[in-house]
Amino acid sequence: MEKLIYLDHAATTYVKPEVFEAMKPYFVEEYGNASSIYSIGRNNRKAVEEARATIARCIGASEPGEIYFTGSGTEADNWAIKGAVYAARKKGGKHIITSAIEHPAVLETCKYLKKEGYDVTFVPVNSEGLVDPADVEKAIRPDTALVSIMYANNEIGTIQPIKAIGEITWKHGVLFHCDAVQAAGSIPIDVKDLGVDLLSISSHKFYGPKGVGVLYIRKGVRLENLIHGGHQERGKRAGTENVAGIVGMAKALELAVANMDQYSKKIRRLRDKAREQILNRIPYVRVNGSMEHRLPGNLNVSFEFIEGESLLLLLDMKGIKASSGSACTSGSLDPSHVLLAIGLPHEIAHGSLRLSFGEANTEEEVDYLVNCLAEIVERLRSMSPLYEDFLKANK
Amino acid sequence: MEKLIYLDHAATTYVKPEVFEAMKPYFVEEYGNASSIYSIGRNNRKAVEEARATIARCIGASEPGEIYFTGSGTEADNWAIKGAVYAARKKGGKHIITSAIEHPAVLETCKYLKKEGYDVTFVPVNSEGLVDPADVEKAIRPDTALVSIMYANNEIGTIQPIKAIGEITWKHGVLFHCDAVQAAGSIPIDVKDLGVDLLSISSHKFYGPKGVGVLYIRKGVRLENLIHGGHQERGKRAGTENVAGIVGMAKALELAVANMDQYSKKIRRLRDKAREQILNRIPYVRVNGSMEHRLPGNLNVSFEFIEGESLLLLLDMKGIKASSGSACTSGSLDPSHVLLAIGLPHEIAHGSLRLSFGEANTEEEVDYLVNCLAEIVERLRSMSPLYEDFLKANK
Repeated sequence: MEKLIYLDHAATTYVKPEVFEAMKPYFVEEYGNASSIYSIGRNNRKAVEEARATIARCIGASEPGEIYFTGSGTEADNWAIKGAVYAARKKGGKHIITSAIEHPAVLETCKYLKKEGYDVTFVPVNSEGLVDPADVEKAIRPDTALVSIMYANNEIGTIQPIKAIGEITWKHGVLFHCDAVQAAGSIPIDVKDLGVDLLSISSHKFYGPKGVGVLYIRKGVRLENLIHGGHQERGKRAGTENVAGIVGMAKALELAVANMDQYSKKIRRLRDKAREQILNRIPYVRVNGSMEHRLPGNLNVSFEFIEGESLLLLLDMKGIKASSGSACTSGSLDPSHVLLAIGLPHEIAHGSLRLSFGEANTEEEVDYLVNCLAEIVERLRSMSPLYEDFLKANK
Repeated sequence: MEKLIYLDHAATTYVKPEVFEAMKPYFVEEYGNASSIYSIGRNNRKAVEEARATIARCIGASEPGEIYFTGSGTEADNWAIKGAVYAARKKGGKHIITSAIEHPAVLETCKYLKKEGYDVTFVPVNSEGLVDPADVEKAIRPDTALVSIMYANNEIGTIQPIKAIGEITWKHGVLFHCDAVQAAGSIPIDVKDLGVDLLSISSHKFYGPKGVGVLYIRKGVRLENLIHGGHQERGKRAGTENVAGIVGMAKALELAVANMDQYSKKIRRLRDKAREQILNRIPYVRVNGSMEHRLPGNLNVSFEFIEGESLLLLLDMKGIKASSGSACTSGSLDPSHVLLAIGLPHEIAHGSLRLSFGEANTEEEVDYLVNCLAEIVERLRSMSPLYEDFLKANK
């Protein structure tokens, strides 16, 4: 069998077998419509409501009624942002504050709203990839409708000071949305402790199925709907409930929360080992983003004089699946907006690699990875005229 | 085992075992991100593109690139309508034409846009539940951005003259969206023959999984995005691809199209048998909607002097799962807007029952259904003071 070393858990995870088992009855057997009044409809309704209660518990919501199921984390982000600013429009709200390193689901939504006439402030990050809460506070205006800052970055894994920002938005009476898609399953989430009003998560980032997400909406917060239609999700998000997906998401989050200590310890150890060996064995490498405030499974490194895409393809030939950043922006030739925001020059940003570790990875895989990386980087550099010039100049 | 006679296929269907088998590998094993460049990502990409080609073929699209995957039929409807009018806004488009009997996914979206300042014309239907294409033509104005008329109604199953409307919209250069969610899998769909620019379908109506839909967008038609973010679906619908759901939807539609003649013949026979027996055995009953232009599996009947909800609950106790109309509007005490639109008085609309037949139903089930119905209707009427008064007055 072909060797497969999957180091792209930040892009997506497989569905855990226990999660799949929990979903299975809702495909072929328990197929009623969760919004019907008869008994098999009611069984589906019950499964959905249990899932809602589980997810509420896992993220520290006050009640299950604060959990709304969506078709993805991206839909949850779109809904939070558009829903908040459309609802605020009547009261004169027309300004959004977000960061320069958000996921495209937030960034592109804000850019769209900007085109539509809203004002958007993109607060910067420092060279460590961290937002300064003081910058958020300075950006707040009387017409600010929403602050949207991600919990953990999808490319460099940096964890933002959400609680400190939550205190600021609370003080100023501004709504606060947090895209926690990368954080969920890797670090604890407690919406009340964080002080967020809106929070997005996505099932397929923590060993649940694709095609299902959640938007947490704090009780009392009013959003305009994004998807209009039937009465599902208490009239706020129309569309027949994806029962199997919803059940799977809840099961996956429940398992993730129960095993979080052990899981994060394990992937942190693998990540730190990879980082140390890479820095020891390969010259002209830098690690991007704070190591202190960072997801346990994320490593993002730049290799000078290297093209990231070639690196990925050669790693793939060795059976190693990694990423140059966000899978959501693949197909684009632009360097990562996150790496540019932390101050990397274009040519170094281009030579970057994201490794994201998961449950099934082993120490042996890390050894193999570093051996392959050392060999591939050397080979690519040997073909690089830039590297040759550099060596000559530094002889 | 408890008896289960499922007669609510218009609300949702189970996933066919063959469909589930096709989906299975994409949960636990083939878990890459379809937007990644490495090989397991590419396998997922290939599966998604094959599904796209299958669906294009099944609905007569010119090319797979006209098929866009969404999280539901409702999302597809929202996207078609909002996307079309937002794109037309710059050119002065601000008028929408739709019918009085659309699904809430269309109706509520139009009502939302009306609140936002757009004009909406709701063309009526006749007592048979059919739109007159001449009414659509009369409603067209220079600022009409979109006509949205459903292919088949979800409550009474009436099939609208889409091709005739398509000729009118084409002549006037107005975009035409068709909500074909109820039609897909039951009657043939050929987007080119129908002359539609936009068409929505939903997987869970034809024995595919819940949580996945499609919007067909004719090549050259420009819509504003509904969900902004990553580059998925050629930059038009962001969010990590629900690979298992997409594969399941394509498999389900392929099977439905291949077996359509046999399937529709079977459910039509069962439906006609039920209709005939009900009319023969139960007095004061009417069938709602045209029998000529109607989905083969749909029967909608009103029982005078009866409350539909009590009828459903008593049927449920006999193991029969039916509906009073749309599951999407359950929870509402208002009578069906569709039945009111065809001219039923409130009290008769309240006593209505939708029976929608499917693959696994049998002749024996129809006999059992009619026996139960006759008994329950008699019982409920015997408790009704209105029925008593009626009998006295007509003695």
